[in-house]
Amino acid sequence: MPTPLRIAITAGAAGPWRITATHTLAGASLPPAARLAMHEGADPPPPGSGAWQLLGVTNSNLRYTGETERTRLAGVQQGLGRPPATRAALIPLSKSEAWWELAQDARRALLEEQSRHIAIGLEYLPAVARRLIHCRDLGGEFDFLTWFEFAPEDEPAFDDLLRRLRATEEWQYVSREVELRLARD
Amino acid sequence: MPTPLRIAITAGAAGPWRITATHTLAGASLPPAARLAMHEGADPPPPGSGAWQLLGVTNSNLRYTGETERTRLAGVQQGLGRPPATRAALIPLSKSEAWWELAQDARRALLEEQSRHIAIGLEYLPAVARRLIHCRDLGGEFDFLTWFEFAPEDEPAFDDLLRRLRATEEWQYVSREVELRLARD
Repeated sequence: MPTPLRIAITAGAAGPWRITATHTLAGASLPPAARLAMHEGADPPPPGSGAWQLLGVTNSNLRYTGETERTRLAGVQQGLGRPPATRAALIPLSKSEAWWELAQDARRALLEEQSRHIAIGLEYLPAVARRLIHCRDLGGEFDFLTWFEFAPEDEPAFDDLLRRLRATEEWQYVSREVELRLARD
Repeated sequence: MPTPLRIAITAGAAGPWRITATHTLAGASLPPAARLAMHEGADPPPPGSGAWQLLGVTNSNLRYTGETERTRLAGVQQGLGRPPATRAALIPLSKSEAWWELAQDARRALLEEQSRHIAIGLEYLPAVARRLIHCRDLGGEFDFLTWFEFAPEDEPAFDDLLRRLRATEEWQYVSREVELRLARD
């Protein structure tokens, strides 16, 4: 923070991450692909043929996290690219019009006071490293791309994190969600 | 709300709004131009020669406004394009890194609990119609484009609104601000 960083996630035949599974939880899926790559910066590679590319921006500003929560997160979270973190998940998702129509305080209350999104996430740090990529204002087909990296032995904990978040009131507002599991050789 | 709408503001020789004055309050100015136009939608016109173009998005979601404030605003605010509103102002601005580094609750407290930005703005409704256009995540040279429309007899009230907002704690975080006054014939 706080310099916005452009992100391009490109799927196709190339890239360091092998797509090991695709689960479509809500809305339309994504075309199948063998591998994917995440590119940082203003000049993303061309999407290529027979593939897809999702664009977004990260590091612009916190949308719901408060100062106390930010301090707690900063004390424990880890960055991307740790050598033992050879597993990842990309979960593009969109929220409904009903979500985006809500004022800021109502969205915050749903996300944290009712759903404990930040508090639940904290329980899985530092094992799970995260990046939240925003797409809504860029006109992409998803509102967010969420990215997670973890070691193979932490995959059951990550599964548990997803199960808990998907059971929350906040997830009633998720209108599209595709989960890709990834492995780095 | 809540469908994001792309906006392009193009300055040059053409457009329904004549630029009557340009004031540079902080940071770099914008090149001089005679007229400007605001375009809504995904396919903005080419910027043209000897001109500038600013791109952004509006109607994506409220960033600080709460439900109570939103209801109060909705009861009194007017839309753009009212025939008597032949005066306008375009004020592109950016906030500092110190602002964007703050967590959500700290930015909200500065904006409203300390600076009364929303409450002050409410006092000038319905005379002043407003549109807030976001650019930060799109990588533009400004973080926001703010747009105001009012009748000629309401221009002194608008001047007063700007004077009060610029005296707030929130404005300590404004790093670039250019004010263009506009008239529609």
